[in-house]
Amino acid sequence: MKLTILGCYAATPRTLTNPTSQVLEIKNRLFLIDCGEGTQVQLRKNKLKFSKINHVFISHLHGDHFFGLIGLISTFALLGRVNDLHIYGPKGVKEIIDLQLKLSNSWTNYQLIFHELDSKKSEIIFEDEKVTVKTIPLKHRVYTNGFLFQEKLGERKLDMNAVQNFEIDSCYYQNIKNGRDITLEDGRVIKNDKLTYDPDPTLSYAFCSDTKYNEEVIPIIENVSVLYHESTFLSSEEDLAAKTMHSTAKEAARIALKANAQQLILGHYSTRYSSLDLFKEEAETIFKEVLLADDGKSFEF
Amino acid sequence: MKLTILGCYAATPRTLTNPTSQVLEIKNRLFLIDCGEGTQVQLRKNKLKFSKINHVFISHLHGDHFFGLIGLISTFALLGRVNDLHIYGPKGVKEIIDLQLKLSNSWTNYQLIFHELDSKKSEIIFEDEKVTVKTIPLKHRVYTNGFLFQEKLGERKLDMNAVQNFEIDSCYYQNIKNGRDITLEDGRVIKNDKLTYDPDPTLSYAFCSDTKYNEEVIPIIENVSVLYHESTFLSSEEDLAAKTMHSTAKEAARIALKANAQQLILGHYSTRYSSLDLFKEEAETIFKEVLLADDGKSFEF
Repeated sequence: MKLTILGCYAATPRTLTNPTSQVLEIKNRLFLIDCGEGTQVQLRKNKLKFSKINHVFISHLHGDHFFGLIGLISTFALLGRVNDLHIYGPKGVKEIIDLQLKLSNSWTNYQLIFHELDSKKSEIIFEDEKVTVKTIPLKHRVYTNGFLFQEKLGERKLDMNAVQNFEIDSCYYQNIKNGRDITLEDGRVIKNDKLTYDPDPTLSYAFCSDTKYNEEVIPIIENVSVLYHESTFLSSEEDLAAKTMHSTAKEAARIALKANAQQLILGHYSTRYSSLDLFKEEAETIFKEVLLADDGKSFEF
Repeated sequence: MKLTILGCYAATPRTLTNPTSQVLEIKNRLFLIDCGEGTQVQLRKNKLKFSKINHVFISHLHGDHFFGLIGLISTFALLGRVNDLHIYGPKGVKEIIDLQLKLSNSWTNYQLIFHELDSKKSEIIFEDEKVTVKTIPLKHRVYTNGFLFQEKLGERKLDMNAVQNFEIDSCYYQNIKNGRDITLEDGRVIKNDKLTYDPDPTLSYAFCSDTKYNEEVIPIIENVSVLYHESTFLSSEEDLAAKTMHSTAKEAARIALKANAQQLILGHYSTRYSSLDLFKEEAETIFKEVLLADDGKSFEF
């Protein structure tokens, strides 16, 4: 699982900082999460393949999370894309993209498939044989979802020594990997756990931005491998955080702790602070495993 | 008159090239012309004051000319702008900005005043005591206007020697600067041209992008000081230029020659070519005074 931060600063794009966008590579799938202005240029700078992105998840319709979407959609068209593109985001995202395409007398040769969200409960919005994506309802000034990406548990792994000792024919291997017990020709039943190892542990990634401190997300993201949680402010600005429905670094850490996350990545920083280290120091008073997002930075898990 | 090119490349923003946007400073007014994605960052990089921009002119609604507008409008709001902002552009521009503000539950504290254009004839769309702006109807795949910015002729300049020789009281100076003759106390009439010099010559700037070769613009921009004319392609791609309703460098030069422009600036280059010099060389076979736009470049006239 690899996470590339294209932008992780709040509010407006600036000379050296970009609004929210990130790419999650999980089980060989490339998911784009949020798409602030300039995302397509950040994709180029980070040498990520446009054509491998088939799913875009938009948390909410504030500009710093989606003003780059129409540009990306248009560029996909200019590049001759043929694959379907799936857009998951709040109700309204289709209307705005359709209107912009209509007014510019443009269209996409590929199919643009919108999955508009309006539920206030967590729901599965994507699923294939290897990955599941669920919404994480967040509390912000407009309708907002985070997203939980989970690898599915793989097949059990064959213990080749055991299988060969029992002289089991290879035609049964798939059944064994699927967890089935085996009856030998002499009638003995061999339990599956004598023939297999547990599958690789799975990884999960939760993206929670933008949101005020909200303990309702905890049962949804419990035991997550990596939690990205916004920390627009430090505790010194907690009144401002409450007023604007954002979180402080300490609040992000408290969610990570209570959800038993393995690691916390902070981001969505206000540009008012002199150093990102201040966010890390503050969060580490609550939770130990803190990483700092920054534009162009990649994390592998 | 100072022109700063924020972006002058066709199609999509890339790592090192920006879509169309430029700032014209004329008679101490700052006009923004087109607003491709990333324009607000380019304004910052070029250290142009956001707050001095009160008028934005959008040529047409293709993304590389206006996808940065909503971001700029939002950033103006975040920066606490109070001055009115005037937007001149094709019918539809208001609908799209309004929809985006509505869906993000945002608003501007300053007044946003739209001047939607749908005429196919050249018309005056801005005028104050020093500057006039007219549309230049262009021929492209969607409804498109160029813009002609003209300084107004100033007052005549007093010839202080002459005025003092005739012992004319200073209370008449303004009338003289306005072009009036003067009757002295002894009854002699002194013609204005004995008391004044001609005002400073005025400058004008014509922005023509995007357009196919179109001689109908010539009477509108005749004798212009500086013509910016798109040259997406070289003559080697003239079929493609015709098909996409763009111009070649040679065609841009032909318009400059026929309109008796003093200088031609080329821009809106396709990124397929190895060097911008190719555009200059080609245009100079037709017209001598050719300049090349490039991102971040300024021209003073």
